[in-house]
Amino acid sequence: MKKLALPKPYLIFLGDTRNILDAKTALGLVDWCRDDCLAQISMPGCKVDLNLPEMNPSQAAAAGAKSIVIGIAPTGGQIKPEWRELLKEALSSGLHLISGLHTDLEDDETLREAGRTGNSKLINLRKAPDCKLVASGKNRTGKRLLTVGTDCCVGKKYTALSIYKAMRELKLKTTFRATGQTGILISGEGIPIDAVVSDFVSGAAESLSPENDHDHWDIIEGQGSLFHPAYSAVTLGLIHGSQPDAMILCHSATRTEIDEYPGFCIPPIPECISKYEESAALTNPKSRVVGISINSSELDSASRTEYLMKLNALTKLPCFDPINDNLTPFLETLRSY
Amino acid sequence: MKKLALPKPYLIFLGDTRNILDAKTALGLVDWCRDDCLAQISMPGCKVDLNLPEMNPSQAAAAGAKSIVIGIAPTGGQIKPEWRELLKEALSSGLHLISGLHTDLEDDETLREAGRTGNSKLINLRKAPDCKLVASGKNRTGKRLLTVGTDCCVGKKYTALSIYKAMRELKLKTTFRATGQTGILISGEGIPIDAVVSDFVSGAAESLSPENDHDHWDIIEGQGSLFHPAYSAVTLGLIHGSQPDAMILCHSATRTEIDEYPGFCIPPIPECISKYEESAALTNPKSRVVGISINSSELDSASRTEYLMKLNALTKLPCFDPINDNLTPFLETLRSY
Repeated sequence: MKKLALPKPYLIFLGDTRNILDAKTALGLVDWCRDDCLAQISMPGCKVDLNLPEMNPSQAAAAGAKSIVIGIAPTGGQIKPEWRELLKEALSSGLHLISGLHTDLEDDETLREAGRTGNSKLINLRKAPDCKLVASGKNRTGKRLLTVGTDCCVGKKYTALSIYKAMRELKLKTTFRATGQTGILISGEGIPIDAVVSDFVSGAAESLSPENDHDHWDIIEGQGSLFHPAYSAVTLGLIHGSQPDAMILCHSATRTEIDEYPGFCIPPIPECISKYEESAALTNPKSRVVGISINSSELDSASRTEYLMKLNALTKLPCFDPINDNLTPFLETLRSY
Repeated sequence: MKKLALPKPYLIFLGDTRNILDAKTALGLVDWCRDDCLAQISMPGCKVDLNLPEMNPSQAAAAGAKSIVIGIAPTGGQIKPEWRELLKEALSSGLHLISGLHTDLEDDETLREAGRTGNSKLINLRKAPDCKLVASGKNRTGKRLLTVGTDCCVGKKYTALSIYKAMRELKLKTTFRATGQTGILISGEGIPIDAVVSDFVSGAAESLSPENDHDHWDIIEGQGSLFHPAYSAVTLGLIHGSQPDAMILCHSATRTEIDEYPGFCIPPIPECISKYEESAALTNPKSRVVGISINSSELDSASRTEYLMKLNALTKLPCFDPINDNLTPFLETLRSY
């Protein structure tokens, strides 16, 4: 099974971006792997600043950068012609080029040629990895925590990264396992699980979190939702391959329907918990939802507190907002697992 | 969404096969689409006979054949070097070459070249189709029946084809929708659903059974099983995209565990029924298991009758063995749907 492995540290390419929302990837990298972000490079007119040193490709390469990462996603998700000269220069300087855009880098002759000159790789995060491993269903040593969701975009990656960070601070043995593009950029490796052929999804998930010390925790980034009419298959395959000992249910406090799927109601939280536990039982009968992570960005402070208290009373589970709450008390409960 | 569409009628290639088990594909074609099988071609030493006229490629092409189909699967699943001359001749005669073997036809220079000469296509049934459609979850007109299973290889394809055939005899409006290689060869079109990237599995299933007359039945070939630790994702995606009005649960009478997955017990049949209905409810809350199809090949006639009667008493559903039983009474119940 081929995991993507990305050469770090990064030079982050910001292009001529004027809208900070287009720079979500770049901002995520600085938030979660600041130490891997050596420098930024922007073009005239760029309005986004990551507060990293500004370097050109040769300066960055001389300073030890291994890759240039496209940290922005303009509408349409294509590489803009006016970026090409600079990206070519980066490749010729020996930096690898990492992109999660829709453009297939190999289709761009200029970039392909420049890559050859600099002996640099063109790394496309959207490309389906060559994963042809059928899941075995066999249990393996080590502990696994998977974030699962009531919908897409409810904080599964953010929650997994927050837990991983807090566990490291507590000196627990842990590894973050990335399953999506931004997660892979942050961690430097992983498998874009939704790009794997459906027959091999569970096999890919098994290989992503291999056997480990009995007290080691893999914190696995979840994908999709069992309640999503388009992506439920990805979610189920990831659950069955991950064999999670613990799951964290992620939910956006104000969401009642699947985003962009009007009429598809999110079930009540206790029902979501049962469905995830029933599904996970196939490969790990002891799998339990052990906490609920709430994206409460649309609530004020008083409403947030009330919401979390009510949810805790309803489910008897630790309920937290990973942006605002200290996760240490919750993580202490995982020590006994 | 690109469905595979296969040029018929077929010349069936039997090679030098001595073992009838290696000729399962060829036998399935003769069983289910006899009218599309124009002729057979065998090599010295071949011990399998489909009782079709023996023709060489030019004779077959002259008689109207459009494709040569590799109807055999030797151990290892590769194209044998000694077949190459004959396959080349077929391609040069203008026949398309259809294969479900592991060999990537395009990798074989001789065949690629011969295809160009004859203006013939090399069609690989294992190749992932270019399916990049995200499921909408929207209901569509027409009725759909999906075969689902307690495991792989329990008769989902056979059951779907039997129902389709019986429905046609009753002059009901119906289409068989193939999701696997042999099914696609029989029907002449379809989508190998387990080769679709996981993000698009439900979308592929939606496009495979598009809207239709309100009294038209798509009979959709099921794949995998919800209880299979490796293939559950394929099954769930196919269910959510198919939005079946009716499901037939297929089971092998003597099987208690998932084949080749010791320790993975098949749940009791009533529990299997509930799990399938609960899963299907996401995109079609009225979806029901309406019958149980039993592969009883390992039971004698008396045991078979007893088994089916007990199962009927337990589930209150029509229970049948599609090889031995007349499906007409069961299909009459579908008229009222």
